[in-house]
Amino acid sequence: MTKIPVGVLGATGMVGQQYISLLINHPWFELRYVAASPRSAGKKYKDAAAGRIHFPGVEEAAGELVVADASDISRAASAAKAGDCAFVFSALEMGKDEIKALEESYAAAGIPVISNASAHRWTPDVPVLVAEVNHSHVDIIPAQRKARGWDRGFIVVKPNCSIQSYTTPLYALMQAGYEIKRLIVSTLQAVSGAGYPGVPSLDMIDNIVPYIGGEEEKSEMEPLKILGSIEGGGVNTASFIKNAELPKISAHCNRVPVSNGHTACVSMEFGPKKPSIEEVKKIWNDFRSLPQELKLPTAPERPIIVREENDRPQPRKDRDTDKAMAITVGRIRPCNVFDLRFVGLSHNTVRGAAGGGVLNAELLKQKGYLG
Amino acid sequence: MTKIPVGVLGATGMVGQQYISLLINHPWFELRYVAASPRSAGKKYKDAAAGRIHFPGVEEAAGELVVADASDISRAASAAKAGDCAFVFSALEMGKDEIKALEESYAAAGIPVISNASAHRWTPDVPVLVAEVNHSHVDIIPAQRKARGWDRGFIVVKPNCSIQSYTTPLYALMQAGYEIKRLIVSTLQAVSGAGYPGVPSLDMIDNIVPYIGGEEEKSEMEPLKILGSIEGGGVNTASFIKNAELPKISAHCNRVPVSNGHTACVSMEFGPKKPSIEEVKKIWNDFRSLPQELKLPTAPERPIIVREENDRPQPRKDRDTDKAMAITVGRIRPCNVFDLRFVGLSHNTVRGAAGGGVLNAELLKQKGYLG
Amino acid sequence: MTKIPVGVLGATGMVGQQYISLLINHPWFELRYVAASPRSAGKKYKDAAAGRIHFPGVEEAAGELVVADASDISRAASAAKAGDCAFVFSALEMGKDEIKALEESYAAAGIPVISNASAHRWTPDVPVLVAEVNHSHVDIIPAQRKARGWDRGFIVVKPNCSIQSYTTPLYALMQAGYEIKRLIVSTLQAVSGAGYPGVPSLDMIDNIVPYIGGEEEKSEMEPLKILGSIEGGGVNTASFIKNAELPKISAHCNRVPVSNGHTACVSMEFGPKKPSIEEVKKIWNDFRSLPQELKLPTAPERPIIVREENDRPQPRKDRDTDKAMAITVGRIRPCNVFDLRFVGLSHNTVRGAAGGGVLNAELLKQKGYLG
Amino acid sequence: MTKIPVGVLGATGMVGQQYISLLINHPWFELRYVAASPRSAGKKYKDAAAGRIHFPGVEEAAGELVVADASDISRAASAAKAGDCAFVFSALEMGKDEIKALEESYAAAGIPVISNASAHRWTPDVPVLVAEVNHSHVDIIPAQRKARGWDRGFIVVKPNCSIQSYTTPLYALMQAGYEIKRLIVSTLQAVSGAGYPGVPSLDMIDNIVPYIGGEEEKSEMEPLKILGSIEGGGVNTASFIKNAELPKISAHCNRVPVSNGHTACVSMEFGPKKPSIEEVKKIWNDFRSLPQELKLPTAPERPIIVREENDRPQPRKDRDTDKAMAITVGRIRPCNVFDLRFVGLSHNTVRGAAGGGVLNAELLKQKGYLG
Repeated sequence: MTKIPVGVLGATGMVGQQYISLLINHPWFELRYVAASPRSAGKKYKDAAAGRIHFPGVEEAAGELVVADASDISRAASAAKAGDCAFVFSALEMGKDEIKALEESYAAAGIPVISNASAHRWTPDVPVLVAEVNHSHVDIIPAQRKARGWDRGFIVVKPNCSIQSYTTPLYALMQAGYEIKRLIVSTLQAVSGAGYPGVPSLDMIDNIVPYIGGEEEKSEMEPLKILGSIEGGGVNTASFIKNAELPKISAHCNRVPVSNGHTACVSMEFGPKKPSIEEVKKIWNDFRSLPQELKLPTAPERPIIVREENDRPQPRKDRDTDKAMAITVGRIRPCNVFDLRFVGLSHNTVRGAAGGGVLNAELLKQKGYLG
Repeated sequence: MTKIPVGVLGATGMVGQQYISLLINHPWFELRYVAASPRSAGKKYKDAAAGRIHFPGVEEAAGELVVADASDISRAASAAKAGDCAFVFSALEMGKDEIKALEESYAAAGIPVISNASAHRWTPDVPVLVAEVNHSHVDIIPAQRKARGWDRGFIVVKPNCSIQSYTTPLYALMQAGYEIKRLIVSTLQAVSGAGYPGVPSLDMIDNIVPYIGGEEEKSEMEPLKILGSIEGGGVNTASFIKNAELPKISAHCNRVPVSNGHTACVSMEFGPKKPSIEEVKKIWNDFRSLPQELKLPTAPERPIIVREENDRPQPRKDRDTDKAMAITVGRIRPCNVFDLRFVGLSHNTVRGAAGGGVLNAELLKQKGYLG
Repeated sequence: MTKIPVGVLGATGMVGQQYISLLINHPWFELRYVAASPRSAGKKYKDAAAGRIHFPGVEEAAGELVVADASDISRAASAAKAGDCAFVFSALEMGKDEIKALEESYAAAGIPVISNASAHRWTPDVPVLVAEVNHSHVDIIPAQRKARGWDRGFIVVKPNCSIQSYTTPLYALMQAGYEIKRLIVSTLQAVSGAGYPGVPSLDMIDNIVPYIGGEEEKSEMEPLKILGSIEGGGVNTASFIKNAELPKISAHCNRVPVSNGHTACVSMEFGPKKPSIEEVKKIWNDFRSLPQELKLPTAPERPIIVREENDRPQPRKDRDTDKAMAITVGRIRPCNVFDLRFVGLSHNTVRGAAGGGVLNAELLKQKGYLG
Repeated sequence: MTKIPVGVLGATGMVGQQYISLLINHPWFELRYVAASPRSAGKKYKDAAAGRIHFPGVEEAAGELVVADASDISRAASAAKAGDCAFVFSALEMGKDEIKALEESYAAAGIPVISNASAHRWTPDVPVLVAEVNHSHVDIIPAQRKARGWDRGFIVVKPNCSIQSYTTPLYALMQAGYEIKRLIVSTLQAVSGAGYPGVPSLDMIDNIVPYIGGEEEKSEMEPLKILGSIEGGGVNTASFIKNAELPKISAHCNRVPVSNGHTACVSMEFGPKKPSIEEVKKIWNDFRSLPQELKLPTAPERPIIVREENDRPQPRKDRDTDKAMAITVGRIRPCNVFDLRFVGLSHNTVRGAAGGGVLNAELLKQKGYLG
């Protein structure tokens, strides 16, 4: 099989590197185009990223590629025409408005954009994809293309890394028929979520920081769009994704001295129908979704792993489970205030960032949108 | 002024050492008696504790004292008679039942016990003291003595270190007239809470552990006794402390790679009357209690410090505020599910353990119970 | 090919688990026998090790095996006879004399012992093997067997984990014709070297400990045996390994807050013939030895990896290179006092412990000693 | 006594803050002038430094002072004239040449400069002061003033923080009559040495970095100037400080996950006369110098503290000894290659930076240079 050529925007940053690392030996995709800031443009990747390569194999995989200027759309379009860039993963790090405009330019130039950036998460016709949860939201792409006059291009995004440790577990319970009304979550988040150089070590030695700018708002709102539904699309209204109304979420986001792996402590209030602990475990253990049915290469075999030990999940022990794509949960127990409590954990730069993006690309390919 | 001679039980352990460290240059109390396990008994303190002294000054302060066997009550009684041990701080580390019996033996021998151990926290006539909150609970001591036939001895205990970061703030709000109905708390707790050797470093490098045995139950229940009231004491009923019914608390307790300082992320649901954020700040900033009025030497000037920065409190920056006895709070903001959220922080081995014990002793002295 | 059945002694400890983990899917060996302390004996491995399994896959691989008492030699002999235990990896954790005697009993019972323990490192006819360095020392086995009256059994050991980061690089230079006279080494050693629970977290948060009991002596002496030669073996003298006289080594051993990966800062004084930096790099990059020629499954392709960046090797980035079996070196530069300096790094529980042991077993198998 | 008014240049940076913190309640000096980059100039200190104040009390001490532009010499001169700035501590963070010129401008304007910066460390007539070691080097000031045409101003600097853990111990031995010929040192340095934000946390979680740019050269060379002597000063030659020729030093500098406190592992080669371990201990324990004789307020009572435990010094336990101004040494033992080995530790931002600077100022004041 000929592999689909793919580009990475923001290729020298931490998430960009994570994308490159995950594309090494990918069965369907092949890295052929890297773009970054004007400062890096024109250099070989290995020179542009020298001294700040965080993942093994990245230098070997991308080192000889010449970095393009990410804002040079015509260059990307030429690459696309030359068969070197059928779509891009966007890991751009710039101002929100700039990213927004730039991603639209790529789409307009016929290059689908699968983005890690938050810029388009609240654009009404852009889906925020967690492949196991709202794969059906890709169906908005034709409407998105039509509304914007794009033929081949489109934009999909993935949500913030902080929500991955609880959103899929919640969805599994909802799909099994249990309404979840309210949620109070405290997250203990890894420093890699802030990129590199990111959090100063003086703040992370013998310390935690109980604040991450903008993170609590994202953690409270993004799940509602993911759990929402495609509406509109009639004669007079454009298609858009309408937020779910529940659950109401309150998030306390903390930065802790962990390299990778976000942990979430969750208290859930159900509607009138309440599952037992054993039912919850069974629902989570049995949960499979479209990525598993389609056997997408990056999909974990079991999206949710239930640990029975009373001190798990733990970041260092559980974050890498099943290619770092599985969500590990544990400590499922009654809540003294709401109904049930649990602890969820996911790898923030794989499941929560580049790995989730690659999985989304695999889904889109199988659904025919990258053809 | 002649200082009151005091003993420390469990003097070679971590909390015992913290007591010794806080008694250095204490204006009212003087360390004159140290007791520990039979293994240490008969040795000079500096030899018994060699290689595991954690605080500066401890060796100089206690090094030449000969360690007694903590279970040798007659020896303690002789010391008391000789004017070397008017009361003891108990930092015993043994089985719960053993501690319970041993502490009772000291009290029966006429030696008041101010305990750090959890053994007697649920004994109905033993107060669980946070000096700023339930100082009035010391009034149960006469009934305790009477019921047990003790003349001079008595037992008071201090609560678990995990609750100190939120119980005093809650109390200040309740005292200002705001009912608090429900509370969901996630704690990020320092490793010193587990003593020494305590938590293995392999569990605390690039990791957190979302579980501390027994801690969630304590964090949920102990505040209710502290916020309770003395009942009974009539002709037919013994005096006892009746738990408050509210707030209902759900606690998620996590161990994090921090040496000292427990952080709590708290969501509060008030009764019908709800304070504004500004009111909450004012109540906390203005809060003073009996230890402040009595100008007890170990009392912080302001029991609750409100920080306005959005990323505080932090353990390394705030735990030592005002002799490590102040509670620092911050991030007071609306809760998306309950009414208000905040972050609280206290030093777990000072405010939450030995410092709290010394403050309790100062209170008891001023109230005439150590006379 | 039928796999050779193998046992692990001390199977529930950290190094024992590391062995089990490395035997998963091993092409030549198959775990069939696990032994540990009497406390664990008779239990299923998953129950005996419950709550302290550190590596993924270990529970699946060994969980259903029933743990034998490691000191029950007759049980091991039966297992050997039944075809379940052709040799053992010893990761025993007990007194040195006990281990010594026990390992000899296994050998006497016809079960070869490949040991991680330090007990036999200074037994004259027991080789201390680093497969790339002194593979020829296995040739002492016939003499060892003969002297002790063993037919099939024998004992080989691997050296302390602290020396792996510099011994192979030294050997490569010596083999290329450069005499190394003196060496001053400072190590920054990972906490996993102390096992579990091992180093308390209170000692490793915002701290380092400049002392590891017995480690400096091992770091200074063991390389001399490894670099030594088999002597004796005539009519009147037993065969033994005679220490090399050079290099003289001074080691400063420090414990640092790193989970895995020992770093060594090395200053080397050569004899009259001194290599240039470029020669050193070429020698190290080109170095291959018998394990590479024999293509042993656990052998790294290149035993020594030279990094050109000025801030490498680093534990988190380099320890896992080539199945965690390669030694990474960097910062090769002139020494202001001796001739040259460099930094070496190896994974202490893989290259420096269980991985080194498995590699030794592979070597012994190919040399016909496990046949 | 009227306090001497003092200014801090680079007042918002980490070392600048450390200076401010040490000047709180200083018996001789009073902070009256703060200067920083143009970005901060004109703002109140509390606003200029908002969100990055690292030390308690700094905001209270300096918060209301209006920050001057550090390159505005005329403003400083006015402040000097107005009696608000008799001398300055320089903690400037800019290009080396800029700092050099700027410090000279202050001196030319009649304002003595006591500098933390490395810019002037190799200027021949500028002393690099460690108050206990080369206090006599202040005698070059008259010649410095004369050569440059300065009346009241002058420049003195302090050395790099990395050398403090071994230079004073070496000097004490040399002064006792023992020549030290060669030294191989490995340092384990705290992250605060790199300022704030400084070292990224991703590099300091489960990791060490065996490289600090420029640090090894400083660690090898600066002690030689400190141990040197004032030469020249005749009719035809300007006065200058001539380097000592010994000891030759080789330094390996490592960054480790410690907030404060640099540790040094040292191997020493003596001349023909070699002290015993007991002599070394006695020399270090007995060592006192001019700052102690003059009872300078910031001087530690005993400059060198010898610990007898085999696992000390340790950063978290020893860095704060005697106002964080004492150097703690331990593990004095024979060296297998040179003569003796030891471990030294000092607080890098106090003893090694601002505290050393304040002590230098106290010395200069008592010697009449700030009068």
